[in-house]
Amino acid sequence: MRSMNKKYVHGYDPRENIRLQDQASTLVELLHSDTSYPAGSQVLEAGCGTGAQTITLARNSPDAHITSIDISESSVAVAKKRIEGAGFTNVSFQQGDIFNLPFEPVTFDHIFVCFVLEHLAQPLEALNSLKNLLKVGGTITVIEGDHGSTYFYPDNDAAHRAIQCQIELQKRTGGNANIGRELYPLLSAADFSSINVSPRMVYVDASKPQLVEGFTKNTFTAMIEGLRESSIEAGLIDEKTFDEGIKGLYRTTGPDGVFCYTFFKATAIKQ
Amino acid sequence: MRSMNKKYVHGYDPRENIRLQDQASTLVELLHSDTSYPAGSQVLEAGCGTGAQTITLARNSPDAHITSIDISESSVAVAKKRIEGAGFTNVSFQQGDIFNLPFEPVTFDHIFVCFVLEHLAQPLEALNSLKNLLKVGGTITVIEGDHGSTYFYPDNDAAHRAIQCQIELQKRTGGNANIGRELYPLLSAADFSSINVSPRMVYVDASKPQLVEGFTKNTFTAMIEGLRESSIEAGLIDEKTFDEGIKGLYRTTGPDGVFCYTFFKATAIKQ
Repeated sequence: MRSMNKKYVHGYDPRENIRLQDQASTLVELLHSDTSYPAGSQVLEAGCGTGAQTITLARNSPDAHITSIDISESSVAVAKKRIEGAGFTNVSFQQGDIFNLPFEPVTFDHIFVCFVLEHLAQPLEALNSLKNLLKVGGTITVIEGDHGSTYFYPDNDAAHRAIQCQIELQKRTGGNANIGRELYPLLSAADFSSINVSPRMVYVDASKPQLVEGFTKNTFTAMIEGLRESSIEAGLIDEKTFDEGIKGLYRTTGPDGVFCYTFFKATAIKQ
Repeated sequence: MRSMNKKYVHGYDPRENIRLQDQASTLVELLHSDTSYPAGSQVLEAGCGTGAQTITLARNSPDAHITSIDISESSVAVAKKRIEGAGFTNVSFQQGDIFNLPFEPVTFDHIFVCFVLEHLAQPLEALNSLKNLLKVGGTITVIEGDHGSTYFYPDNDAAHRAIQCQIELQKRTGGNANIGRELYPLLSAADFSSINVSPRMVYVDASKPQLVEGFTKNTFTAMIEGLRESSIEAGLIDEKTFDEGIKGLYRTTGPDGVFCYTFFKATAIKQ
């Protein structure tokens, strides 16, 4: 919950933070608006994918230099096009494997990792690898979701079972959809110091129509719904239960519905 | 998330709020420090029990007049002794049934209800009954927990099953241990306006030893542990699984453990 700009040494700005916590109307605000890096700093974005977060990083830290890497050459190409298309000139792109990056040790002032560890079979090793690239006193920021943090009203057992399919499918590919709650122990095991974990709960009721549409429906439920075939093929659930579960998730977007999900944002320092 | 003092009309104070959200070292701070009522206002605390919350209410609103009621005469006596023993003179006590209170309609400026609705088979009727006592423009503040919001690291199935016993036992007495997530729809159904629900997540890792002891161990786990006999007698779980579950909950208080629980605080206005 610390911003990475000058204010860092003085702690975070509560006005900024409360805006996030209680009035964030978008996920971008909730997760990213308190991350900005000082002018001239060298920032590594490890695992940029197609640049979904890169664009916010570039916007929030206009005078930092961001190096964004991803293991997928095609994703890097999409990200590059996206960022350059938006007119940003403060990002360099490069293909690279997080476990074997083409940089000298102790190269970066700050490292940013968002929605990456959840996909790795060895998240601790990834953190150790990244730590080698960080200067002493430099920070790492890690953001991850936690699907096990999901609950809603009206409660619905089939909906929980459909979500559980996502968790199980991700586990089968070596990932961990519940890694958010684990950031403190992971950063601790990687021997980072001043670890600060800040849960970012997305609380959605009918008074927040933008989040009902943007998060509950079009982000979370759409994601689960997209795993219908693979969940059924994997024998994790039957069609009827899955469809009931999706119906249950949409039911939480009604005028009396509530949906809760928590992301975890951690910052820590290399000592 | 609005304080009930003068600042109310201008919204809440972000500095106060962030202090709650990120630095609260006690539950009292997290739940109550943004509730204070203006001088001269008439406040009803509905369901004061033995005065656990009354003392904080009295301290935070020294110049308001608080009327604290509970259905249990003996609880009221304990609460009265506790508050008077602490030297507060701004609270009156009275035995009374929330569904049939001995007050004229439209008597109170503000109503405060904490950890009460979870025990009632008819929470909506309780809110309607309380609303009758409130002046137009007056506020209601409702705080409830949600046991279904509990998750932790390391995850442990037996621990979830032990928690589920508590939820089931409470359901059998007509209550609802997962009512926190339901505050928005309940207040909405009772036709309150300007409903604002603010989740208060208790996030505990080893960097917060006071919460490890005070919340994870001595509040939450102790509560679940206390239901060992009744859970086993009710046939909800076997001894071995229950004990494993308790061990799993204590395991989350280790140096690499994490524990998450969310309370919900709602404020609303009678129009």
